Amino acid sequence: MEIHEGSYVLLFHTARKKWLMKVTSEKKMHTHLGVIDVSSLIGMKYGSPVRTSEGKIVYLIEPTTYDLIMKSERKTQIIYPKDLGFIAARTGLKNGSKVLEIGTGSASLTTFMASIVKPNGHIYTFDVNADFIAVAKRNLEKAQMIDYVTICEHDPHQGIDIRDVDVAIVDLGDPWTVVDQVYDTLKGSGAFVAICPTMNQLENTATKLKFSRYVDIDCVEMMIRNIEARQGMTRPSTRMIGHTTYLIFARKIMQPSNKEDYKEETAVIREFD
Amino acid sequence: MEIHEGSYVLLFHTARKKWLMKVTSEKKMHTHLGVIDVSSLIGMKYGSPVRTSEGKIVYLIEPTTYDLIMKSERKTQIIYPKDLGFIAARTGLKNGSKVLEIGTGSASLTTFMASIVKPNGHIYTFDVNADFIAVAKRNLEKAQMIDYVTICEHDPHQGIDIRDVDVAIVDLGDPWTVVDQVYDTLKGSGAFVAICPTMNQLENTATKLKFSRYVDIDCVEMMIRNIEARQGMTRPSTRMIGHTTYLIFARKIMQPSNKEDYKEETAVIREFD
Amino acid sequence: MEIHEGSYVLLFHTARKKWLMKVTSEKKMHTHLGVIDVSSLIGMKYGSPVRTSEGKIVYLIEPTTYDLIMKSERKTQIIYPKDLGFIAARTGLKNGSKVLEIGTGSASLTTFMASIVKPNGHIYTFDVNADFIAVAKRNLEKAQMIDYVTICEHDPHQGIDIRDVDVAIVDLGDPWTVVDQVYDTLKGSGAFVAICPTMNQLENTATKLKFSRYVDIDCVEMMIRNIEARQGMTRPSTRMIGHTTYLIFARKIMQPSNKEDYKEETAVIREFD
Amino acid sequence: MEIHEGSYVLLFHTARKKWLMKVTSEKKMHTHLGVIDVSSLIGMKYGSPVRTSEGKIVYLIEPTTYDLIMKSERKTQIIYPKDLGFIAARTGLKNGSKVLEIGTGSASLTTFMASIVKPNGHIYTFDVNADFIAVAKRNLEKAQMIDYVTICEHDPHQGIDIRDVDVAIVDLGDPWTVVDQVYDTLKGSGAFVAICPTMNQLENTATKLKFSRYVDIDCVEMMIRNIEARQGMTRPSTRMIGHTTYLIFARKIMQPSNKEDYKEETAVIREFD
Repeated sequence: MEIHEGSYVLLFHTARKKWLMKVTSEKKMHTHLGVIDVSSLIGMKYGSPVRTSEGKIVYLIEPTTYDLIMKSERKTQIIYPKDLGFIAARTGLKNGSKVLEIGTGSASLTTFMASIVKPNGHIYTFDVNADFIAVAKRNLEKAQMIDYVTICEHDPHQGIDIRDVDVAIVDLGDPWTVVDQVYDTLKGSGAFVAICPTMNQLENTATKLKFSRYVDIDCVEMMIRNIEARQGMTRPSTRMIGHTTYLIFARKIMQPSNKEDYKEETAVIREFD
Repeated sequence: MEIHEGSYVLLFHTARKKWLMKVTSEKKMHTHLGVIDVSSLIGMKYGSPVRTSEGKIVYLIEPTTYDLIMKSERKTQIIYPKDLGFIAARTGLKNGSKVLEIGTGSASLTTFMASIVKPNGHIYTFDVNADFIAVAKRNLEKAQMIDYVTICEHDPHQGIDIRDVDVAIVDLGDPWTVVDQVYDTLKGSGAFVAICPTMNQLENTATKLKFSRYVDIDCVEMMIRNIEARQGMTRPSTRMIGHTTYLIFARKIMQPSNKEDYKEETAVIREFD
Repeated sequence: MEIHEGSYVLLFHTARKKWLMKVTSEKKMHTHLGVIDVSSLIGMKYGSPVRTSEGKIVYLIEPTTYDLIMKSERKTQIIYPKDLGFIAARTGLKNGSKVLEIGTGSASLTTFMASIVKPNGHIYTFDVNADFIAVAKRNLEKAQMIDYVTICEHDPHQGIDIRDVDVAIVDLGDPWTVVDQVYDTLKGSGAFVAICPTMNQLENTATKLKFSRYVDIDCVEMMIRNIEARQGMTRPSTRMIGHTTYLIFARKIMQPSNKEDYKEETAVIREFD
Repeated sequence: MEIHEGSYVLLFHTARKKWLMKVTSEKKMHTHLGVIDVSSLIGMKYGSPVRTSEGKIVYLIEPTTYDLIMKSERKTQIIYPKDLGFIAARTGLKNGSKVLEIGTGSASLTTFMASIVKPNGHIYTFDVNADFIAVAKRNLEKAQMIDYVTICEHDPHQGIDIRDVDVAIVDLGDPWTVVDQVYDTLKGSGAFVAICPTMNQLENTATKLKFSRYVDIDCVEMMIRNIEARQGMTRPSTRMIGHTTYLIFARKIMQPSNKEDYKEETAVIREFD
């Protein structure tokens, strides 16, 4: 695919030296590695190399949702790909899904989910902070996802006027406070997800869910480690991420007539059923 | 949503006691917890409880792609949700993507990817084992994804007649042997992924990629741990999965004229750029 | 070294099939692999192979503290080697150390610590449960550590009459309830350790320590993973331990005159100072 | 215990701001936090606070082996406490043990082991690099362990004149090249340990051991994660160590008469026998 005026390009030198930019008729881009004549990129193919004024090579990479999220404008902590991916896989998020999101933040999750559910699915996202919403809008437009997202500046505690939601995801400081409001939005057996950075949030949310007509309550943490793979000298990287967040999943049910039938979830290694 | 004849239902008692079944006019289903009158499920809403003949409660859960994969017929090792999710997130797999898969196996990955790229995207998947292909077909039909997948019984080492692929994923015992063939199928800056259960496979594949016009070579392992979250008594589960596979990611580039410009990937914590 | 009457021997076939026994003139030992003529072991060297009646090979291994702990009689959850080792390394436990232990349990930790601090060091261990104490005594005698341990059947909440302790370690359900009593027993800058299986216990103990004249408060968890190392086919094991316990470390100080000087411990990666 | 002339003191402000020093009649010590009048420390108790010239509080901590190792002079990569501890726990290293060490390096492991095996045990350590040996000597003297260690400037490949060793530990780039020489030094069922930073070293060493009359071959990696424990806000630290080294353990046996009896070690979760 060719680069044209208005295209986004990830200028890639190494994993630590890369820049996301929009191609315009503006003549030059100044980087740590030298100057790049931006107008000359028009008509070039993604994957091509270009030389900076200092003779360094930079590759023209077509940005993926991953790149857009990692380089997005941030007012809040983003949700990282290692967690985004598992949220999609665990909930069965797919093309056509109708999604509710409480806590838009910087829209990293919104962007990712929109890229999957479009063109027939839709994300309804709620936040009360106008600044966050402004940043979220810009990120969604940059990622070309804005058409699949409706941003509502509304406090979800007051109730949420969405119904038949496939997946509801909550990213608030106190997720347990909207469990009941979210319940009403979900279709039967619809998926509930909450982002819980602390153990305390996880504990409170799990407890609320247990007494709120949900089953398959599943609390996890995802850890990712890089491996330096070289012939004869392969070993994991010296440093790694210790923690981003815990995730809690559950599914909405209609309560049985007799409360004692509610079965508490016992610990299982769910990946290896 | 209502259950009708031919619907799939996940009968959920607990995470360890659940069954995936197709609703037919067949009268009964026998489980460890008693007998369920299947025909009576027709017309019921997902999320509803039903009682077995022994009075146990089971919930009618609408199966997600996750459920279908975890309960799929298997002739080969499946790829688990913790890895599926990150593959999607890291490559920017999205609605409309054109995907090449080498090594169909039991189609767990194929199913997951199809659920995301449809209706306009497509998966071209290659395998040489007729038995695996037969199982894959059945799993894809059960998941209603077959329309978005073309299964080719063909040895990829002979060359692959697909072009402009957004994401290519290789699940073979020797992924490095198809790196060149896959290169030709990818669009410029398209994503390459390989499933490498052993360190040796990871090492060989990384080395091949380094000398084969790819950048952003990234080797990772994803670990997942369950947390038993109970008020006043929260702790991680005693056992966890130690390992499923390593994953290696890279992006196709067109080589610069001077080979010394090729920059080796240094180790980074990519999640926290 | 030679085996004699009364020696302990670990009969080792594989990591999963091994038995700890005491050599007596009793004629036979029956195992899954056949019968072993025990009296014939007398005079043999450790490391030698013997054949069972079914012709299987078993090795005569001289039991280490590790073996004795893993095969000990248990009334309570033992503390595992991955945690025992770090407790020793982090506190500087060494030959000659004077140690206080609250909560003797099955004496796995007591045994390990005694093996290090002897012959001049000593462990003073407290428990209120006579059954646990009986088991602990037997384990310590079997490990030949009993001379270096004084077991006190006494409630530590009433006060502890030991002074100038180098290392104090607490293994109770509510460790924060003895922090003050332990404070009095420690020498200046002596080490405090608590075993905290849940995050709640860790949180409560850390909070109590922060307001109780301790510094260098350090909460950790140790994870261990096995690697199956085979030429050309090396990979981590499929399953691993998810969690045994959290550990919390601190050092006793005498408070400065002005309370505001107390500095809260900020998060650090202590291993890589 | 009181501080006197020649004592070592760890001046502790926080985990990231601490200094190890020797108390002399030298008047002042300059730190980031102000000046400390060193001679005034003489006669003070460990655990006491002192004020710097800028009024900051620093605590006088009695250094443990841990502190001495973390603050030691380094010409080579040290072995970290998380690995030191498990080496001791897994091998049954204890008071009185006779230890062989190949590869003295900066003597972090030597120091730790000497602190445990003294006064009757001994470490025989081998290195061929005179610079490393010089640094090792200084570290051992500073830690007051030099009397329990014999440093041999000798190439172990030529053969090692030590016998009846309880624990032999190898820290070389190519540990498999001394497996046979180490075999001769070990007592029957004595413990072998190798430090293997890369998977390749681990693989080669494991393979060599499998064909060299050892059993209970066990390859592991230890991971440590810090938890930020605060009331109502507990969560793991954002960053953690990804990797230091793999460890491989084994025990010496005398070979059975029939080679087919040699049983390959199958994968087990050893901690939970």
